[in-house]
Amino acid sequence: MLAGQQTWKFQRQPHIISTATIVGPDEALGPLKDSFDKCYDELEIYEKSWEKAERRLLSEATSLALSKKNLTADDLQIYVGGDLLNQIITNNFVARELKIPYLGVFGACSTSMEALAIVAQLVSTGAVKKGMAAASSHNCTAEKQFRYPTEYGAQKPPTAQYTITGAGAAVVALDGDGPAIEAATIGRVIDLGITDPFNMGAAMAPAAVDTIIAHLNDMNRTPKDYDLIVTGDLARVGHPIATDLLLKEQVPINTTHFDDCGLMIYNIDDQQVEAGGSGAACSAVVTYGHIMNELNKGHLRRVLVVATGALLSPISYQQGESIPCIAHAVALKGKGVE
Amino acid sequence: MLAGQQTWKFQRQPHIISTATIVGPDEALGPLKDSFDKCYDELEIYEKSWEKAERRLLSEATSLALSKKNLTADDLQIYVGGDLLNQIITNNFVARELKIPYLGVFGACSTSMEALAIVAQLVSTGAVKKGMAAASSHNCTAEKQFRYPTEYGAQKPPTAQYTITGAGAAVVALDGDGPAIEAATIGRVIDLGITDPFNMGAAMAPAAVDTIIAHLNDMNRTPKDYDLIVTGDLARVGHPIATDLLLKEQVPINTTHFDDCGLMIYNIDDQQVEAGGSGAACSAVVTYGHIMNELNKGHLRRVLVVATGALLSPISYQQGESIPCIAHAVALKGKGVE
Repeated sequence: MLAGQQTWKFQRQPHIISTATIVGPDEALGPLKDSFDKCYDELEIYEKSWEKAERRLLSEATSLALSKKNLTADDLQIYVGGDLLNQIITNNFVARELKIPYLGVFGACSTSMEALAIVAQLVSTGAVKKGMAAASSHNCTAEKQFRYPTEYGAQKPPTAQYTITGAGAAVVALDGDGPAIEAATIGRVIDLGITDPFNMGAAMAPAAVDTIIAHLNDMNRTPKDYDLIVTGDLARVGHPIATDLLLKEQVPINTTHFDDCGLMIYNIDDQQVEAGGSGAACSAVVTYGHIMNELNKGHLRRVLVVATGALLSPISYQQGESIPCIAHAVALKGKGVE
Repeated sequence: MLAGQQTWKFQRQPHIISTATIVGPDEALGPLKDSFDKCYDELEIYEKSWEKAERRLLSEATSLALSKKNLTADDLQIYVGGDLLNQIITNNFVARELKIPYLGVFGACSTSMEALAIVAQLVSTGAVKKGMAAASSHNCTAEKQFRYPTEYGAQKPPTAQYTITGAGAAVVALDGDGPAIEAATIGRVIDLGITDPFNMGAAMAPAAVDTIIAHLNDMNRTPKDYDLIVTGDLARVGHPIATDLLLKEQVPINTTHFDDCGLMIYNIDDQQVEAGGSGAACSAVVTYGHIMNELNKGHLRRVLVVATGALLSPISYQQGESIPCIAHAVALKGKGVE
């Protein structure tokens, strides 16, 4: 494959006609609080298990994204979603409620943009009229599955990231208000040999850079064409690495227009979130909340969301494998932008 | 959504230009032995862990599907794959070898046709020129993850199914020899309340029936239009249930043209495989081996492959949840068939 053949350019650009974001208490303490539709005041989300808590977040986000535009699930021909849990069980159960065609996807924390890319492609080509993309994560479902039982209260090193609790959903249609989806760049798996699951930002940074470069090449653009290029969840360790790698590759990235959802969602210095946020919902709730608002208000004209994922499993790293990483990018354009 | 809006009809029909299938020793004892490209004589696949064994199967299947047509991964613009393992780790690692854009998907044992449907859509619409779909499973990676440590040698009830060991891959392009892909029907999650993970055939049967009916309605076809309608892995318990449900819904299914990959792959009465085969590779290796051969030889003209998946996780059933199920169907047409 030639470099720069990773991008689907949408000839008919679909629109994100509705979004919804629901988060937990830690995210409600962050600077993006007002951009979320609903913030729960307790991590249990009034459910009896962490898994049920995550499911409730996703269920409510998907329902709200529909009801905001007086739609029901029956108005959609596809639901594409995924999460971090084994067998993406949160999405499977929410798809059961929706009762519409369902494609389950897994790209770890890149799932948000993987799902949006697929829905946009299906809408753009007319395979479906309307579709919904969503992703979810919960701090405690992720902790218990990937690390230790939550009751341990195990300490983590400062390079570790804090899985955000939340869910984000987006309804996509060919016609309608809302930001247009110009293109999607599908990432390749990049693995430079990092084996420490407590340093996923560093592991994921090269994947983000690979996808950003592929996107710019495919679109014949430079970083200046975007008001904001935002990575998914590289956080405090990974994001500066990505900046360095881009500059080393002669990509003129302007750090004031290059940010990270995992850094934006928390008050990093004041909240106990180690290096910053992560999780499949991290890029989902920042994109479908704050970034959508800014695009709709005209504060941002073009944004490239580069969701990053660490494709490890507990078994793979226990067996000594390094961490394969990936990043999928979606280019969004505000209303009226040519 | 109206009934019958689940199908992507491909205006430009892509072709399966190459396939490869690799299996383990149990599958080599079954009636389809000669249709597989390679049969391993030991379940360990000459590797040191079950996970590495499964990865080797998928790695070799994807390589072989390419080399049969003198292609390399660089000739592809997309790889879509999934498996049963947590975080679909087998596919993540194989995607790392391929170094091309990758969409990870999860539909349990329906993954094979979920992946093929997505690749076909991308090729048909010109988003990519060539792509590959694949799926894998290994009896022992599945056993240790979903049931008990393999060392226990735990007994299973006769309704249980036997996860097949293998991997199947298909290369899809717009032009070329090989069966055409006419359409793909994306399933909805169906859950009639079965909670027994040792009876997944019965749990999945209603999902298969739902997708078959949607497909026939969407395509304005009857079962007679297909020489073969084949479910993924309903096996000895689930397949007769699907037949009964179809007849109850007034679908004139002819049982001599209605079969199941999980029944076809083994000599059910002679091999110790309980109710029959299952696993993401089950429908993949039967479709990409035996069915491809029959389509290429003109013995079968039209085939509908209905891959079925049980979307449970060990945590979900331990928490008392029932088993959400899904089925994705792909319609294949032999060379020269109008």
